Amino acid sequence: MTKPAVVLLSGGLDSATACAMARVDGFEVYALSIDYGQRHRSELDAARRVGEALGVPRHVVQQIDLSQFGGSALTAAIDVPKRRSEDEIASGIPVTYVPARNTVFLALALAYAEVVQAADIYIGVNAVDYSGYPDCRGEFIEAFERLANLATKAGVEGTLSFSIHAPLLKMTKAEIIRHGVTLGVDYGLTRSCYDPVEQDTACGLCDACQLRRSGFAEAGLTDPIPYQA
Amino acid sequence: MTKPAVVLLSGGLDSATACAMARVDGFEVYALSIDYGQRHRSELDAARRVGEALGVPRHVVQQIDLSQFGGSALTAAIDVPKRRSEDEIASGIPVTYVPARNTVFLALALAYAEVVQAADIYIGVNAVDYSGYPDCRGEFIEAFERLANLATKAGVEGTLSFSIHAPLLKMTKAEIIRHGVTLGVDYGLTRSCYDPVEQDTACGLCDACQLRRSGFAEAGLTDPIPYQA
Repeated sequence: MTKPAVVLLSGGLDSATACAMARVDGFEVYALSIDYGQRHRSELDAARRVGEALGVPRHVVQQIDLSQFGGSALTAAIDVPKRRSEDEIASGIPVTYVPARNTVFLALALAYAEVVQAADIYIGVNAVDYSGYPDCRGEFIEAFERLANLATKAGVEGTLSFSIHAPLLKMTKAEIIRHGVTLGVDYGLTRSCYDPVEQDTACGLCDACQLRRSGFAEAGLTDPIPYQA
Repeated sequence: MTKPAVVLLSGGLDSATACAMARVDGFEVYALSIDYGQRHRSELDAARRVGEALGVPRHVVQQIDLSQFGGSALTAAIDVPKRRSEDEIASGIPVTYVPARNTVFLALALAYAEVVQAADIYIGVNAVDYSGYPDCRGEFIEAFERLANLATKAGVEGTLSFSIHAPLLKMTKAEIIRHGVTLGVDYGLTRSCYDPVEQDTACGLCDACQLRRSGFAEAGLTDPIPYQA
């Protein structure tokens, strides 16, 4: 019998690749997307398309409202920075950081995983081209894995030993794209932009767009999605 | 200036006491209640009453839907166990365990805390009369505190050093009640029942009711709330 894994699927390039990797690793994928009040909600449509294209049998969209707390350009009325240089992107944690986002996402994934008896959770975080987010680092992932096994009935009783898989952690964006292409990921279905101008057009200027575009350029591939600028 | 603290306020006896303790510790309380699809939703009304009575200046209710995952008598169509003996209650983790609930709650509290720049988070977990839940133990709280400081911009940059306060951790239910009474907590406003028969009447037979009633009995005090049985 195929073993279940919960995959956090945002609709972006990274999580689509992580999802394809979970399938190649032999898991039956339980996809989980989080509608957290983000301004770039078109990524949720992308998540649905990506899940369907990858033949994911189950996909839950969990709604929470992080904008009730505010504090991030992705959830509050703060401008998303544009046209930043590579050095600027690499220095410090930007205003697009959402407080404790990946902790909240992994906590929800853990709840789902324990219910469906999945010991394995996939998250597409990436510490190389990661915009400096603290919850995209290996130390964070390890600390969460440790927590997961103390926090749950299955972990404490030993019926499941939770593993948090972050297979993209040490890959560059170009490596992720090249690898995803070999796995048949259709990046035309994914969306990465923090501030899309219309539902299906990326701004081309935010950090996420810039990292994505230079990834495709470095991989020598054409990004199939539309950009405004 | 008074320092802020986020307090997880469920509307039950324990979190009301923890909230009163945060105030006595000198914090300005940012209360956070979670509407997670629990069958005992009257506890959310209780949370509002408790917050008002304790003069909490800010109170956010965050909605999530753990019943989308299922897997617990508190969120799915599984019967809440009744009339269990003290030995039965003390043995093993009951079906009222909600997968990863306190991990999800603390993750949301952390998100809120980072936004309002609160280094301190209070949670009313209790390892003595705790029904055997894994996420009510000191080890879990310590692991979460460690995670919090790795997961956040404030933790990584050192602007905040997060502390998870679980002041009831080693108290018996009777000790909690006695202490709360000295702090002026009105337990008539709180609700603990997992399976209330009407909005304001506790069943009297579930583990939560039984633990609460023996706590009051042991403290030599009268529980001011109505019970059906």
